[in-house]
Amino acid sequence: MKYIAVFCRFLTDEHRRTLEAAASRWDYAVDYYTHFDQVPAEKLPLYEIIYGNLSPRRVREFPSLRWLCLDSAGADKYVDESIYPNPDVVLTNSSGAYGVTISEHVLMVMLMLLRHISPYLEAAAAHRWHPAVPIRSIYGSRITVLGTGDIGTAVAQRVKALGARQVTGVRRRQQPADPAFDRIVTYRELAEILPDTDILISAMPHTPDTAGIISRENIALLPPHALIVNVGRGTAVDQEALAEALRGGKLAGAALDVMVPEPLPVDDPLWTTPNLLLTPHISGNMSLPYTCDIDVELFCEDLARFAQGQPLRQVVNRNLGY
Amino acid sequence: MKYIAVFCRFLTDEHRRTLEAAASRWDYAVDYYTHFDQVPAEKLPLYEIIYGNLSPRRVREFPSLRWLCLDSAGADKYVDESIYPNPDVVLTNSSGAYGVTISEHVLMVMLMLLRHISPYLEAAAAHRWHPAVPIRSIYGSRITVLGTGDIGTAVAQRVKALGARQVTGVRRRQQPADPAFDRIVTYRELAEILPDTDILISAMPHTPDTAGIISRENIALLPPHALIVNVGRGTAVDQEALAEALRGGKLAGAALDVMVPEPLPVDDPLWTTPNLLLTPHISGNMSLPYTCDIDVELFCEDLARFAQGQPLRQVVNRNLGY
Repeated sequence: MKYIAVFCRFLTDEHRRTLEAAASRWDYAVDYYTHFDQVPAEKLPLYEIIYGNLSPRRVREFPSLRWLCLDSAGADKYVDESIYPNPDVVLTNSSGAYGVTISEHVLMVMLMLLRHISPYLEAAAAHRWHPAVPIRSIYGSRITVLGTGDIGTAVAQRVKALGARQVTGVRRRQQPADPAFDRIVTYRELAEILPDTDILISAMPHTPDTAGIISRENIALLPPHALIVNVGRGTAVDQEALAEALRGGKLAGAALDVMVPEPLPVDDPLWTTPNLLLTPHISGNMSLPYTCDIDVELFCEDLARFAQGQPLRQVVNRNLGY
Repeated sequence: MKYIAVFCRFLTDEHRRTLEAAASRWDYAVDYYTHFDQVPAEKLPLYEIIYGNLSPRRVREFPSLRWLCLDSAGADKYVDESIYPNPDVVLTNSSGAYGVTISEHVLMVMLMLLRHISPYLEAAAAHRWHPAVPIRSIYGSRITVLGTGDIGTAVAQRVKALGARQVTGVRRRQQPADPAFDRIVTYRELAEILPDTDILISAMPHTPDTAGIISRENIALLPPHALIVNVGRGTAVDQEALAEALRGGKLAGAALDVMVPEPLPVDDPLWTTPNLLLTPHISGNMSLPYTCDIDVELFCEDLARFAQGQPLRQVVNRNLGY
């Protein structure tokens, strides 16, 4: 018998049955833990596979580890080679599970900014009827999506279906045409795209290429009516430059679901920046049953491949960071 | 020379040029007014056509009126025959201009309710990081749309594109299949549909058939996780029953953009009802350029028909109310 240690916190009884059925098919037993401290010391050498986001500093404690499957799409805390007991440990993520929930979050915050919901909510809290303020629409907008993976593609498909005029994907390397996007360019061409962007959406992992990409210079290239939405990683954005642009009216609005640091300290100036919608890293909320179902499904599919010695589909390249 | 009196408040210079070009082609001159009081008494008999929502009690003051074109989709204040100088005045509306803006409003409020944005906004106002709460998605939901006109169809197309599992249209009479809906049933079948509805959206005009249709009995037929969104007319909803259902946890949430009366008085119990998102009749906000463009375009198209003695396309049946 071989062993899998599961650290996912979102599993229903149904998910456990699915996991156990898939595992037993390949002679694996499954143990569930909430924290590392619950793992009996004598069992540590048994586990070949970990599923779930165990604290990175604990990964080395599993000497027989061969595969770590994250239940998140983001893998930035796990790209450091020194956290692994040996360099051959394969790292996979759950990219593919988050497109639906994160793209619905993106639509929500875009519409809240475009339709200026804040004054209406404030007036309603005071039991007052607020006069109409000018609004804008996703329909007819030019939308630039940084990151063309599962999440960026899900966002692009949705804004296109809602009538966005032009949807541009931006990624590290050129890739074949994808019907979700009107065009795909590389990061190097970003500066040319920004002046014609009404809404800039970041759905990028944290990597050396993406850190700071929404820089002071790039923010200044956007037209003053533009919006920025970040659901990738907080490191992409120069938060000081963003706050200055919003305070100075150089940018119409922004919505950050990710930021640096998380949680944001109570005295951070972002909290009081005008036209900035802050949410506490919830766009990929694991309470959406669909997200959890896909997450488990992706693991079980890669488990079958792993057990048969085939390449895994969800592999993270630790040099690239995704 | 014949004359058109325009009472629309949203017109840009570009819209005026478009209107004047269309009018002059058929030998009409255009005068613009903000209020009835601005119309010189001696000019009242000149106007054959009014474009815009002049106060209903002033319509009789135009003895030569042959056509009243509303700039709204809703026509309920203009169905009373006694407001017209003669029974032959044709009434048209601007159904077709509002689908984009109202459907984007519907998506916004649905997502705000499904994703429980309120506690996050309250925490952010207090500079606090709020823990994740369970959420739901449009993806996979069963959505029932009351009213299958321009607005209901635009809503149906969008939720379908976002992956709604089943989209049911409900209307007065059976009609041929419409690809925007998975099925269309009549008001008479509503009670059978409600127990399997996750989100009920009303985009109906006010008519004798629709007044009170979201009744206490019908609200009770919805499952407790259901949401109600109303962007049609406030008279559709039994507001007391709705508030009771929300307070009693018999319904998960609601968003009303229309209500009775408007504006809602400061002491109305709706303001303090839990899980109720109230907006001040702004879903069809005329500041969306697209809405205004289409509104003017629809008028100009019907003007060409009117001038040539052809039937108008946007006619409101004053007996039906739409």
